[in-house]
Amino acid sequence: MIELNQRAEAVLRQTVARLSDGDNLTNICPSQWRGEPLPSQEAVRDIVTLSRALVFPGFFGDSDVTRENVLYFTGLWMEKLYHLLVEQIHAGISMSTCTDSMPQYDAIQRLAAEKALSFIETLPELRRVLNTDVEATYHGDPAADSVQEVIYCYPGIKAIANYRIAHELVKLGVPIIPRMISERAHSETGIDIHPAATIGESFTIDHGTGVVIGATAILGHHVKIYQGVTLGAKSFDLDESGNPIKGIPRHPIIGNNVIIYSNASILGRITVGDNAIIGGNIWVTNDVAPGERLIQAKADNILRIKQ
Amino acid sequence: MIELNQRAEAVLRQTVARLSDGDNLTNICPSQWRGEPLPSQEAVRDIVTLSRALVFPGFFGDSDVTRENVLYFTGLWMEKLYHLLVEQIHAGISMSTCTDSMPQYDAIQRLAAEKALSFIETLPELRRVLNTDVEATYHGDPAADSVQEVIYCYPGIKAIANYRIAHELVKLGVPIIPRMISERAHSETGIDIHPAATIGESFTIDHGTGVVIGATAILGHHVKIYQGVTLGAKSFDLDESGNPIKGIPRHPIIGNNVIIYSNASILGRITVGDNAIIGGNIWVTNDVAPGERLIQAKADNILRIKQ
Amino acid sequence: MIELNQRAEAVLRQTVARLSDGDNLTNICPSQWRGEPLPSQEAVRDIVTLSRALVFPGFFGDSDVTRENVLYFTGLWMEKLYHLLVEQIHAGISMSTCTDSMPQYDAIQRLAAEKALSFIETLPELRRVLNTDVEATYHGDPAADSVQEVIYCYPGIKAIANYRIAHELVKLGVPIIPRMISERAHSETGIDIHPAATIGESFTIDHGTGVVIGATAILGHHVKIYQGVTLGAKSFDLDESGNPIKGIPRHPIIGNNVIIYSNASILGRITVGDNAIIGGNIWVTNDVAPGERLIQAKADNILRIKQ
Amino acid sequence: MIELNQRAEAVLRQTVARLSDGDNLTNICPSQWRGEPLPSQEAVRDIVTLSRALVFPGFFGDSDVTRENVLYFTGLWMEKLYHLLVEQIHAGISMSTCTDSMPQYDAIQRLAAEKALSFIETLPELRRVLNTDVEATYHGDPAADSVQEVIYCYPGIKAIANYRIAHELVKLGVPIIPRMISERAHSETGIDIHPAATIGESFTIDHGTGVVIGATAILGHHVKIYQGVTLGAKSFDLDESGNPIKGIPRHPIIGNNVIIYSNASILGRITVGDNAIIGGNIWVTNDVAPGERLIQAKADNILRIKQ
Amino acid sequence: MIELNQRAEAVLRQTVARLSDGDNLTNICPSQWRGEPLPSQEAVRDIVTLSRALVFPGFFGDSDVTRENVLYFTGLWMEKLYHLLVEQIHAGISMSTCTDSMPQYDAIQRLAAEKALSFIETLPELRRVLNTDVEATYHGDPAADSVQEVIYCYPGIKAIANYRIAHELVKLGVPIIPRMISERAHSETGIDIHPAATIGESFTIDHGTGVVIGATAILGHHVKIYQGVTLGAKSFDLDESGNPIKGIPRHPIIGNNVIIYSNASILGRITVGDNAIIGGNIWVTNDVAPGERLIQAKADNILRIKQ
Amino acid sequence: MIELNQRAEAVLRQTVARLSDGDNLTNICPSQWRGEPLPSQEAVRDIVTLSRALVFPGFFGDSDVTRENVLYFTGLWMEKLYHLLVEQIHAGISMSTCTDSMPQYDAIQRLAAEKALSFIETLPELRRVLNTDVEATYHGDPAADSVQEVIYCYPGIKAIANYRIAHELVKLGVPIIPRMISERAHSETGIDIHPAATIGESFTIDHGTGVVIGATAILGHHVKIYQGVTLGAKSFDLDESGNPIKGIPRHPIIGNNVIIYSNASILGRITVGDNAIIGGNIWVTNDVAPGERLIQAKADNILRIKQ
Repeated sequence: MIELNQRAEAVLRQTVARLSDGDNLTNICPSQWRGEPLPSQEAVRDIVTLSRALVFPGFFGDSDVTRENVLYFTGLWMEKLYHLLVEQIHAGISMSTCTDSMPQYDAIQRLAAEKALSFIETLPELRRVLNTDVEATYHGDPAADSVQEVIYCYPGIKAIANYRIAHELVKLGVPIIPRMISERAHSETGIDIHPAATIGESFTIDHGTGVVIGATAILGHHVKIYQGVTLGAKSFDLDESGNPIKGIPRHPIIGNNVIIYSNASILGRITVGDNAIIGGNIWVTNDVAPGERLIQAKADNILRIKQ
Repeated sequence: MIELNQRAEAVLRQTVARLSDGDNLTNICPSQWRGEPLPSQEAVRDIVTLSRALVFPGFFGDSDVTRENVLYFTGLWMEKLYHLLVEQIHAGISMSTCTDSMPQYDAIQRLAAEKALSFIETLPELRRVLNTDVEATYHGDPAADSVQEVIYCYPGIKAIANYRIAHELVKLGVPIIPRMISERAHSETGIDIHPAATIGESFTIDHGTGVVIGATAILGHHVKIYQGVTLGAKSFDLDESGNPIKGIPRHPIIGNNVIIYSNASILGRITVGDNAIIGGNIWVTNDVAPGERLIQAKADNILRIKQ
Repeated sequence: MIELNQRAEAVLRQTVARLSDGDNLTNICPSQWRGEPLPSQEAVRDIVTLSRALVFPGFFGDSDVTRENVLYFTGLWMEKLYHLLVEQIHAGISMSTCTDSMPQYDAIQRLAAEKALSFIETLPELRRVLNTDVEATYHGDPAADSVQEVIYCYPGIKAIANYRIAHELVKLGVPIIPRMISERAHSETGIDIHPAATIGESFTIDHGTGVVIGATAILGHHVKIYQGVTLGAKSFDLDESGNPIKGIPRHPIIGNNVIIYSNASILGRITVGDNAIIGGNIWVTNDVAPGERLIQAKADNILRIKQ
Repeated sequence: MIELNQRAEAVLRQTVARLSDGDNLTNICPSQWRGEPLPSQEAVRDIVTLSRALVFPGFFGDSDVTRENVLYFTGLWMEKLYHLLVEQIHAGISMSTCTDSMPQYDAIQRLAAEKALSFIETLPELRRVLNTDVEATYHGDPAADSVQEVIYCYPGIKAIANYRIAHELVKLGVPIIPRMISERAHSETGIDIHPAATIGESFTIDHGTGVVIGATAILGHHVKIYQGVTLGAKSFDLDESGNPIKGIPRHPIIGNNVIIYSNASILGRITVGDNAIIGGNIWVTNDVAPGERLIQAKADNILRIKQ
Repeated sequence: MIELNQRAEAVLRQTVARLSDGDNLTNICPSQWRGEPLPSQEAVRDIVTLSRALVFPGFFGDSDVTRENVLYFTGLWMEKLYHLLVEQIHAGISMSTCTDSMPQYDAIQRLAAEKALSFIETLPELRRVLNTDVEATYHGDPAADSVQEVIYCYPGIKAIANYRIAHELVKLGVPIIPRMISERAHSETGIDIHPAATIGESFTIDHGTGVVIGATAILGHHVKIYQGVTLGAKSFDLDESGNPIKGIPRHPIIGNNVIIYSNASILGRITVGDNAIIGGNIWVTNDVAPGERLIQAKADNILRIKQ
Repeated sequence: MIELNQRAEAVLRQTVARLSDGDNLTNICPSQWRGEPLPSQEAVRDIVTLSRALVFPGFFGDSDVTRENVLYFTGLWMEKLYHLLVEQIHAGISMSTCTDSMPQYDAIQRLAAEKALSFIETLPELRRVLNTDVEATYHGDPAADSVQEVIYCYPGIKAIANYRIAHELVKLGVPIIPRMISERAHSETGIDIHPAATIGESFTIDHGTGVVIGATAILGHHVKIYQGVTLGAKSFDLDESGNPIKGIPRHPIIGNNVIIYSNASILGRITVGDNAIIGGNIWVTNDVAPGERLIQAKADNILRIKQ
């Protein structure tokens, strides 16, 4: 087996050389990867876990929480969260500024610490708002036996929690990390909410797989959506190279108390008024008036073949 | 950087105090979290892993299983499973009874042990039924090369396994843990089967992402469904507060040998007869007769624009 | 509690005996599980992680990559990848040949090593092609701020990376392992691409949940698809036992520069010509001409009920 | 290689059968190992680590202790310590009572909890006394640069800490666990102090390897000993079977402010008076008066050979 | 801080280059380190842990052993032990033969497997003999409360267990691994028994720190020794280069029922007869007759200075 | 069991409060533990492991080292070592300066980095000198079969390696970390070499348990010592408070080619000339001339009692 081993040595050595050649690593910011940290998927995972544990102690993170030790757990989780946030916000800022004249390490570190603290200060309010989502979900689903079941078992709550965490970071101007956080929820739940979207309180998602909510969508309070719902763009304005222009509002505005049933698609910068109801599987590209109800007409395009 | 560190200390200390204040932790059963265990997401994950390993040794859990050591692995997995089940069933019972006059610790423990043993006794039958699902999947999919590939690679099998495990626990009256088990499969596969649903043998799900099967659905034997299929509720009866009444049958009854193609939605307490076929993307809210075949009529609502 | 403990001992012992009885373990190749390794889900996960890290160092795997240490990381990752590949390809070959007269251990090992090396030699080309996918995604999505964000956050890239890795192994004739690799991406992203499909460069998937691409599908360059798109089979040819015949081309052929919007289903061995556009939610079972654009006609089957 | 594999299977199977045969496991208390826990070397190691961390936070256990988080760390360490102590004290009691009519599980558990709490209540006093040992060591050794160095680096402090922890458990009547604790220090430092010995404050051991202090030894305050010192028994009273009678005082009584230099042996129930000094390498089997100083006479039994 | 970072990069790069240059790695067998495994300290540690657990289940390894699961634990421990032994014996043979014409991989593997099986077959007898050591220790020490305490807490038992394991491997002609095993006990207990020594049943070591037993020593049954005892060589025969000649008997022969008290040194190929007693701190370089008792004469070389 | 639980809660809460009260934590430098890192025993352990692996790759650290991957392993080990050294040297400087006006964080960090790099630059020379120790040990011990056995199995080599590593850090003025490194070797081997001692090349320690070499000792080349040897102080000069004055030379000077047999004690600032031999168990407090040989005279203080 000598020949094969010699071939193995040669193949491995040559492929290592080619893959580690700096000229083939064009995606990495040259100034950055000399020592500045890159964002870490594992660290972002831990940020999500710690934030969820701080908001819902006992349900996420360590399940041994008691009245006596909740202070101790909270204290140590908070400290870990703070350090991870500073590190990852720093990495995100470095990465997003690497093509320009980069700020100094110390300046980025100070900025990252300030943003991390500002985020941490929002955690009590984050818990209050997430509890409105939990309550709305519990009351709105006949299959939910308790609010505890909702927190433990509803993917909608996990996705909304990540969205609300990520959205706070977007508001603080943190680059890339919010998208990594929302993508973790997407992977976990099949619910893809862009962290730049604006969503009111008492928000409910049932089942949720396949839900998409775009970056410029605006949702009011007490909105309820089901699996497969898309709040998307209808088309993009293109620049002279034929590429979409970034940053233009292109997703719908949804009012208060709106219900959108499974697999409906609402596309473009249209407005769905308060108290509207969108039936399942419906394709909507025009405004919907307040209180209006859209349902599938009789399914006359279905053939029933008796065998 | 002194000022920032002092700000950091203050922000962390104050936020820790607010988040760990018992008055802000209303979701947690007060009698419970003084020491009784809470259900643990990690323990439930291990219950799933061990149950799968016991049913399909070598495919899940440790891959070093041989004819010689399968007894030893089975013995240790079983013991771990038993202890985790007792612990988590106990935690589930405590959580679900915490607003009433709670039973004593010892009484709950005894009850949990009995339910855990009853579950364990069903494992050989569980393996037999799951093998009918594997066989049906292998014979029904031209892309499947072997039953081994089906067990290793088909998300449908993972979701059905979790459903069958969770359903046994539902039958034993175990609260919350079954939903945590089925939600794990939902996260892993995008297939959301409520553990209270009733599903016959030789059940097949292909691709599976977006499948939803509601709590009161009833499915016969040899049913086959594709990605995006919803077996859901059409509407909820509301109580005087406008909230859905819990526990009313509201999902469809599916007969034997029924095939439901991708993205079809079957809604409400309707009946789909034996040997029926539901075409892709179809919206069904009325009964379907035995042997009937529903397909999309000619797609005359599509515009074809030649450029 | 003596009685319960004695019952516990008895139940556990008897169930262990039944589950570990070889006669009840019919899915496992008898010749194999006397000592030959089975494929391992954990090892396949590590193969994916290492391959992604080698292609996108710093983004996947260890985030501490710098210009100085990229050679060292690459070298050790490569060696681990090689050993895992040999082991898992060996296990896959053993499993897939276990019903026939099995080749000798040494012959399989040599074969597995050769295939592993051939795979490793494709890694630089794999990186080049994946970079075309990253570039296409960045330019095609107005919400993408940088190519780095695309690599870190777009599930489409993760799914395409796994597909391209798995497809190379399919081309080398490796059984079962490619399907395990693509199924990992399916679980992580909700995107289900069969590793035997053929897909050109600069491929883009946005959001992606619910996407299905069948085993015999062929896609050109610069194809872009959205969430919920199915490139599936319309029907299967059955053999005399009524089971689908395996291996017949049954999925569509998609040309270059085609866009397919969300939830469209393209079914059967049809051809979609270059530069065609398929609108959202559309059901296509016939050929589409080059440059043709299919959109939903005015939604006259929707009832608008004013309240 | 078939024959060898078959031999391997047979040898392993037969040896497993012989080793796991209950008749060959006579050292294990038959009533106990049906389910009662055995003491665990790993749990005892964790008890030592947690106790040291509680007494010297930052020096042992987690080094990230700050003024802000010391409360949180202390709280969680304390809770873990309590649970481990209850579990291991329970195991120790079960093991030590297994030949008699064993008390009920609940009674042992209650007893173990009471002893664990009594131990925990002594921790502040334990810290105070250990600090006298640290101070004495710092002032007594010209090579010690700081009290911090003494805590981090002096094996004497580790051994004395384990002794003082274990001695508290001896006073509470806890069986076997104290010996496991002192034996851990013996392994770590080469210093073997029986936990039943009685030792005053400001105790110093320098270098320490080979030190032995017997179970019935009594030491005053401000005693200082060096490596290789034995405070042992001279002879044992034998019972009619010729075995030593257990429990008879047989080790020396050492007064206050005594110094014992390296490799001295002090044997039997003799008394060494206050302020005495025992020179290195000396063999003492008779009382030493207060203030007396024993040194090696001129080494006239050494031959000096000029080459 | 740029300059320092550049210096850091340069220093690290250059030192890496120098240290990894093959010309500076002369201690490693050139033919071996191209791929053959080296012995692993971690694997040897696991061999010791597994062997101890198999001999004393519950006391070492996992403490959850019960009558029901002891078979399962034993089975899996045995399999792990077998694989580790084959791997490490192979590595030991490769290392020890690397200067000669090395045998083929397969031949070494077969040899290693045979030796591993032969070792495993001795485990039941090893348990029997070790139990004689445990019994002798229990009966001989007034401080020992139970045989369980002896197994858990006596370093002598750990050192003797490692010696007996290693000695079996010496008898099978396994190179280097036995020395690694005995050195682990030396590190853990301060007791240094060369694995080539010959030691009878019912062997007792009390306290043990500093004990040295040389490679050619021979001990009878029922020998008892204390801390600091050396059974060593008096002088070495030198070869023409002035280096000691290897392999010549140079350590004492100790009869049955001999007791050797603390810090005694017995040096050279002398014989200590049955039932002899050697007092503490004594230096012996001549034969001792059966039944003879050596004690320190009155300590007239000690000065007693009254202060 | 309510009362006990309430007692448990109270005892734990009160003890936590007392132990975490800053006023009871006087050993910790107040300025430091607000955020500056403390030295970490785990980090120091890793520094030792990495340094040993760099000097003897394959023998310590990962045993998978081959000619192909030694560069990659060396590169990553080196980087980890550098970061750990900077962190721990920083922590050591902070701790040792905390009673004075502490330097700025950045200044300490820069200083720590410089010292770490200077240490790393000595590694190739460290390997060369350690190889002289290995060679001397191999040639000097008839029981050593190969230099590989010496590196793997001789505690003397481990202790000398730690000493030489720690001594380089002493020379660079690094506080406390060197003592932590040498104490790790003391714990592992029973050999206690102060890192400030000066020791020449080709140094050999056999068996080693109980060896003590003091801080101001000076040893030449080719010195060989056995177990239990003390190179210690005879007495300390005291200051006006009666405490020893720190920093005065008080340990012996040993020439080249000296052999010191087991349990000999050489005490005070005396000189042992080149080529001297000190016999076992001898107590030396006066100069020994070059070439002189000290042995025990006939053991006329031993009583031989015939029974």
